Amino acid sequence: MSLEEGKIGSTLFKAESFHVDFSGHLTMSVLGNELLNCADSHAEQRGFGMTKLHDNRYTWVLSRLVIEMKRMPRQYEEFYIHTWVENVYRLFTDRDFEVVTTDGEVLGYARSIWAMINIETRKPEDLLALHGGQIADYVCDKECPIERPGRIKVRGEAPVREYLTQYSDIDINGHVNSVKYMEHMLDLFPLEMFKQKRIGRFEIAYHAESYYGDTLSFYREAVGDDEYDIEVRKNGGEVVCRSKVKFI
Amino acid sequence: MSLEEGKIGSTLFKAESFHVDFSGHLTMSVLGNELLNCADSHAEQRGFGMTKLHDNRYTWVLSRLVIEMKRMPRQYEEFYIHTWVENVYRLFTDRDFEVVTTDGEVLGYARSIWAMINIETRKPEDLLALHGGQIADYVCDKECPIERPGRIKVRGEAPVREYLTQYSDIDINGHVNSVKYMEHMLDLFPLEMFKQKRIGRFEIAYHAESYYGDTLSFYREAVGDDEYDIEVRKNGGEVVCRSKVKFI
Repeated sequence: MSLEEGKIGSTLFKAESFHVDFSGHLTMSVLGNELLNCADSHAEQRGFGMTKLHDNRYTWVLSRLVIEMKRMPRQYEEFYIHTWVENVYRLFTDRDFEVVTTDGEVLGYARSIWAMINIETRKPEDLLALHGGQIADYVCDKECPIERPGRIKVRGEAPVREYLTQYSDIDINGHVNSVKYMEHMLDLFPLEMFKQKRIGRFEIAYHAESYYGDTLSFYREAVGDDEYDIEVRKNGGEVVCRSKVKFI
Repeated sequence: MSLEEGKIGSTLFKAESFHVDFSGHLTMSVLGNELLNCADSHAEQRGFGMTKLHDNRYTWVLSRLVIEMKRMPRQYEEFYIHTWVENVYRLFTDRDFEVVTTDGEVLGYARSIWAMINIETRKPEDLLALHGGQIADYVCDKECPIERPGRIKVRGEAPVREYLTQYSDIDINGHVNSVKYMEHMLDLFPLEMFKQKRIGRFEIAYHAESYYGDTLSFYREAVGDDEYDIEVRKNGGEVVCRSKVKFI
């Protein structure tokens, strides 16, 4: 194992029957949560995970997530999620992912950007100062050949949907789970869309947290053939997140 | 390994960070889907799974599910799901589950009842005739010390919620996923309920399938302290499923 390979976390999964959609392919929301679980495990094993950080009153906050898939794992197919740290800056870190079958076929990649905040002040922490800057030792030069997240602007005049957040939306951080937004966004599209196309790229930028009992308004704008920008606002005002969905 | 132990399927899980709720415990819906995945894998490995059956134009249909938990796995806790066949009748089979930590602490049990239907005729098949009655060889006498599912009657006059089914509700069988009903039912309760109590027993009986675009109406009746019966009807008529939820 090379030095760089030692920096990569790998977890084997199987696309189980009750984790696939009507088409027999793994759902985006199951994949999304597993990417975040892999990120968390990888950080945890290196002393930068939630448990260690909670004791120290810090937590990771996901700022951006992009998933680009050549194809989704099929029912019963085994695949690895590999994850590694691409960059560490003062306030953000870039973490990448590769999804690959046990035969070595690359199914797709993902990129994520994280900040670390102090749970009490909700202010971002200096990552380079944490544990004496140890996090920088995990930076790995493995390639992640998909475009970085871009800027998303949504000109939606009326919401296409309003949704009152529920118990099942709330995660261990006490806010709406990052992947639940993805699930609600994909539910804006008719089943027919998923019969004819599949999601090639899904990009989301998180701007503010939302909580139990918040009303989320979903605005959607078609910005090209099979490409949509989506904005979620809470309680009629603040932008919670923005997304770009490309069907192929 | 004894003869009976050889009939038990076992899968190791970890309650990952993005599979736990605000309280840091595995969610019922993650557990529910994993129970069904374990059932499917166990059947698949023995030649009675979805893939094999789809080729033969049969599929398993879940009729009942009861989950009774002493406690839910905590964030990062490892646990096994053990599953085995308790009984095989002509039209139904009883499959049980045990959830146990790697230290051997039993966290809970589940019971399920399944039928097998012909995909084209939607009629139930004779399980004892399948593969020359081989399924009966898997019957195991391991104990499942929780009450069998009972009869649920709901006297609800007005629905407490209406829900239009979406893409994310639909599973590989083309109908609303069994566990999604559970998720929608638990979402009928306020977050405050889950702060003060937890679910001790969840029981669900499936009566009819529902599909993409169906409107589900949820009726709820309090039948005791912290005990609720719930009925789901589709499109203003037919009963889809009924459930009994006990908080403790």
